[in-house]
Amino acid sequence: MNFPNQVIIREVGPREGMQIEDTPVSTEDKIRMIDMLSECSIPIIVVTSFVSPKWVPNMSDAELIARGFKNNSRTQYQALYLNAKGIERAMQTNKFNLEGVLSITASETFSKKNTNLTIEETLEKMDERIHMLKKYNISIDTIAVMTAFGCLYEGDTIPQKVINLISKTMKKAESYGECPNKILLGDTVGWANPVSTKLLIDKVQQNWPNKEIILHLHDTRGMGIANAYVGLQMGVKYFDASVGGLGGCPFSGAGKAAGNIVTEELVHMCDELGIQTGIDLEKLLKVTEEIEEILGRSLPGKVSKGGSLNFYRTKHEEY
Amino acid sequence: MNFPNQVIIREVGPREGMQIEDTPVSTEDKIRMIDMLSECSIPIIVVTSFVSPKWVPNMSDAELIARGFKNNSRTQYQALYLNAKGIERAMQTNKFNLEGVLSITASETFSKKNTNLTIEETLEKMDERIHMLKKYNISIDTIAVMTAFGCLYEGDTIPQKVINLISKTMKKAESYGECPNKILLGDTVGWANPVSTKLLIDKVQQNWPNKEIILHLHDTRGMGIANAYVGLQMGVKYFDASVGGLGGCPFSGAGKAAGNIVTEELVHMCDELGIQTGIDLEKLLKVTEEIEEILGRSLPGKVSKGGSLNFYRTKHEEY
Repeated sequence: MNFPNQVIIREVGPREGMQIEDTPVSTEDKIRMIDMLSECSIPIIVVTSFVSPKWVPNMSDAELIARGFKNNSRTQYQALYLNAKGIERAMQTNKFNLEGVLSITASETFSKKNTNLTIEETLEKMDERIHMLKKYNISIDTIAVMTAFGCLYEGDTIPQKVINLISKTMKKAESYGECPNKILLGDTVGWANPVSTKLLIDKVQQNWPNKEIILHLHDTRGMGIANAYVGLQMGVKYFDASVGGLGGCPFSGAGKAAGNIVTEELVHMCDELGIQTGIDLEKLLKVTEEIEEILGRSLPGKVSKGGSLNFYRTKHEEY
Repeated sequence: MNFPNQVIIREVGPREGMQIEDTPVSTEDKIRMIDMLSECSIPIIVVTSFVSPKWVPNMSDAELIARGFKNNSRTQYQALYLNAKGIERAMQTNKFNLEGVLSITASETFSKKNTNLTIEETLEKMDERIHMLKKYNISIDTIAVMTAFGCLYEGDTIPQKVINLISKTMKKAESYGECPNKILLGDTVGWANPVSTKLLIDKVQQNWPNKEIILHLHDTRGMGIANAYVGLQMGVKYFDASVGGLGGCPFSGAGKAAGNIVTEELVHMCDELGIQTGIDLEKLLKVTEEIEEILGRSLPGKVSKGGSLNFYRTKHEEY
């Protein structure tokens, strides 16, 4: 076991979850959700997306949300943006630590369908993106690989392909004097299993022993927490997760399929393994219940239904 | 990795699931469920319980179910019984391979609440049970430890306590010339985590290197599949699971909490890791959908919503 002492969990529910949510959620409820999550001392929350309301109508209230939520000094707030306009909108609210990310997709077909660019075109366009980030003084801290384990159109991703893409992107960033210190491995459609997770992490760690890995796992087929466990065993310190399992997979199961791994399941596993997250699990379980009330349906997260074990450990005498 | 080439998954949904199900399910639907599961080539199915209809009204149609389902030569059918009356009822139907099990609970409080016997009383009563099994020519093949990882009343179970209980039970069986070759570790309330799972399996394997372990895992807090993965890594070949995640935990969350690990999630993980189960996953996913229709609600199992990866691997050209 090579568990880290502490992990940093980034809450992506308000962004990834709300983005594909069918149930209309009021801006007030979205703000309340973010404030409740802040109260749990989650280290990073991705609050919203500054993208075109024409393409993503669910995110048209991004400014209102940004203005509405309470800044908590223990939490860092991020927002998604795709272009200069998005950056400017986010910056005007003065609420965010904007992350500088260079993204690339390992599957050609997925890349084309999702971004309308081939892998080669993505690499070509990267100079432009780096210029834009530099213009806004956003340092590039992360290289993100989508469909790093596989994709519905092309099947399994060969790990060496991921390594080559990271390598090319890294060189490009470095040629501009940037030094991304994190590599995000995105299991965009829930393709990873514990062995493929181990293999890819291993290869990335061998190639970049001094960079941190962010695991962005989806639980589309129920293996997400097992994959996260393998990540922990290999010393991974950064994880993305979604409260209650909010969201879903737009690529599988017509929106019925599960999305990101569930924040409270990951926090609970870390608590049980003695790995610190800084997150107040009992409060988080209440947040899931509140979000279930807002949405009027049950979410996939299991800990809020079963109760945390520390709850029983401390209460079992009265229970 | 010490993965077995093949694992034997026992389907417990028709028994554990139906036993605590609130939605009334007709005997015809229960029979159809079992027949559909047989069609998936599941090696063992626990069909029903021959227990007092006064205590478990959901199981009052045990004989009708037993008479109704079709025997499939690839499947072994088991049924639960508690006493001589149950054995006789099961035997009269001529449909079952009755398993000889000696059960014991690691938590004193849980034992008392669930069986109305202390651990000591359970051990004392075991002679009686062995006599009964011998009378009906049921050989004792399994020693089962409930709450082997922890319980809501007493917290964490100390692994050495489990070892001592297995040891005492084993000696008792052996004193009657019986040789149980399987040890079931029951995570009755979903207390295990990957590390505690590893520790207990390790201790059992050290003490009884020639016995097989059956992992009976619950997914009450979302760690079930991660725990199963650890079991596979340690060469465990026998697993209990429930189709769709049918059932729940009567001890946590007022029936809302998840129960056994989901059969199709375990089968899917095995498929992805190259471990044979003999089970037809695509058919099984359809069974989950059918059961969801029968119950009129969604079940926790995720693979039926996301689709298996082999489906996408073989269809992705047309997809």
